[in-house]
Amino acid sequence: MDKIKIFCPATVSNLSCGFDVLGLALEQVGDEMIIRKTSGNQLTIRQTEGPEIPLDPANNVAGVSARSLLDHLGSEDGFDIEIAKRIKPGSGIGSSAASAAGAVWGINQLLGAPLTTKELLPHAMTGEAIASDAWHADNVAPCLMGGFVLIRGYDPIDVIQLSFPKDLALAIIHPHLEIKTAESRTLIGDKIPLKNAVAQWGNLGGLIAGLASGDHDLISRSLVDHVAEPKRKHQIPGFEEMKTEAITSGALGFGISGSGPSVFALCRGITKAEEVGQKLADAFTPQGIAFDLYCSRIHSEGIRIIP
Amino acid sequence: MDKIKIFCPATVSNLSCGFDVLGLALEQVGDEMIIRKTSGNQLTIRQTEGPEIPLDPANNVAGVSARSLLDHLGSEDGFDIEIAKRIKPGSGIGSSAASAAGAVWGINQLLGAPLTTKELLPHAMTGEAIASDAWHADNVAPCLMGGFVLIRGYDPIDVIQLSFPKDLALAIIHPHLEIKTAESRTLIGDKIPLKNAVAQWGNLGGLIAGLASGDHDLISRSLVDHVAEPKRKHQIPGFEEMKTEAITSGALGFGISGSGPSVFALCRGITKAEEVGQKLADAFTPQGIAFDLYCSRIHSEGIRIIP
Repeated sequence: MDKIKIFCPATVSNLSCGFDVLGLALEQVGDEMIIRKTSGNQLTIRQTEGPEIPLDPANNVAGVSARSLLDHLGSEDGFDIEIAKRIKPGSGIGSSAASAAGAVWGINQLLGAPLTTKELLPHAMTGEAIASDAWHADNVAPCLMGGFVLIRGYDPIDVIQLSFPKDLALAIIHPHLEIKTAESRTLIGDKIPLKNAVAQWGNLGGLIAGLASGDHDLISRSLVDHVAEPKRKHQIPGFEEMKTEAITSGALGFGISGSGPSVFALCRGITKAEEVGQKLADAFTPQGIAFDLYCSRIHSEGIRIIP
Repeated sequence: MDKIKIFCPATVSNLSCGFDVLGLALEQVGDEMIIRKTSGNQLTIRQTEGPEIPLDPANNVAGVSARSLLDHLGSEDGFDIEIAKRIKPGSGIGSSAASAAGAVWGINQLLGAPLTTKELLPHAMTGEAIASDAWHADNVAPCLMGGFVLIRGYDPIDVIQLSFPKDLALAIIHPHLEIKTAESRTLIGDKIPLKNAVAQWGNLGGLIAGLASGDHDLISRSLVDHVAEPKRKHQIPGFEEMKTEAITSGALGFGISGSGPSVFALCRGITKAEEVGQKLADAFTPQGIAFDLYCSRIHSEGIRIIP
């Protein structure tokens, strides 16, 4: 095999009470990549679709991730990475993570899978780091591994695939606004009140227990963010109106995807997600800002080969 | 029925990564109470065993809890509460919680159970508050309800009974030292570094996922405390020596019970807990401080009627 075509899912991280530790992979939203083994020893990157991204492998997350993997393996093979970038950069649903994870997953496949998917994580994180100025796995891990994941810790990296009810689905609004992840982090500060931290870990515990037992009411009660949302929601016009609409319409919870500007409503069933998505679109439209609406189930598999 | 004899289990709260939100009930360690409905309308408290406790119902956690319940019910009945106090006050394994929870549970039974066990919680917490200067449920909830519980939140109080592997058992060392809960809390401070908070909720998530799936390795990796233990361990002589001994001897984790001075080792199986308990006792003995050693499984039931 010297060519592989893959789907690299968009991902939603943070998920209200799961700041920096939770992420999930979407089923219907993602990039496509075609990776070809070449006769040379270079990496080349080409783009066939979507907003312009850097094509210099040293400045492209896919290129940086691929180089990290190849150096680790001592490989001198060359690859051409062709990206159909359907997840808009800066959307807050894991655009850079999809490129980073896709590059290492695809190349690993073409090399006969010398590494496990978990072993690919640090290499994908290396690429992700140049896009977000932070060493984090809450988008690359669900993109690579699929499902609903917990990043238990980073030293060493420990990613847990959580049990979750298979009827969960999301509606996502991506307002076409620019929010820099690094700036967004400074809003939260280096210290937080202990009482907010305790409230947050109570809710995170409730969410994981609810996901494991399939208790949708508990999931819903637990989807509260005491840490990031109160600071960041002001960056997103119409946030409160959308949140009210989502909860009124029966979503289990509503919050910021990653560091925004995308917002998500977690729902029981794709039909409910589509209904809530339409309500969110209606609620956001008066802002006069262009946006995309996505509705999707959670995909258990992560990156996968497509025809 | 005008008399009830009950066992009120000792409880271990905090449990490393679960500061203020986790607690569990022990099987073999606890107080006994006999509660009698009397012909008058007064509360009386008597003690048959253990270190002296206040017998004035207005200054006794059992009395205060009982009064809160009776006022709520509009009951003018009188009760005599006889306490065999086997859990030493100030030990950090829920001595006051056992009295508070036992009083309301027993009286509720004698009145024909007008309230559910969950509905008894706020009344038990009212009594617990006079002992610890804090409104918390992480001892009274597991004492009342049994098992391994998560306090998801307080507004309103939301207690979740977690799934957990039935082979879990604990070894507990209670050094005879006095640590005031309120003083111990000030050591932690009102604000904590965000990175420690994130590490803590990653571990709490891992612990709950591990408990739910019966993954003992994940439970073990998650039993890390980035918040309270680093500040409080210096209050307990020999803490590091005991921790090293516990981990070396195969405990899943080791930490401070509540705000101390008791420490616990969580183990797989009661035989392992007994083995680790002996090692802990050996490691603590050179401190020259009297101590008790307890080994116990987790009890799923909480307070229960005994013959």
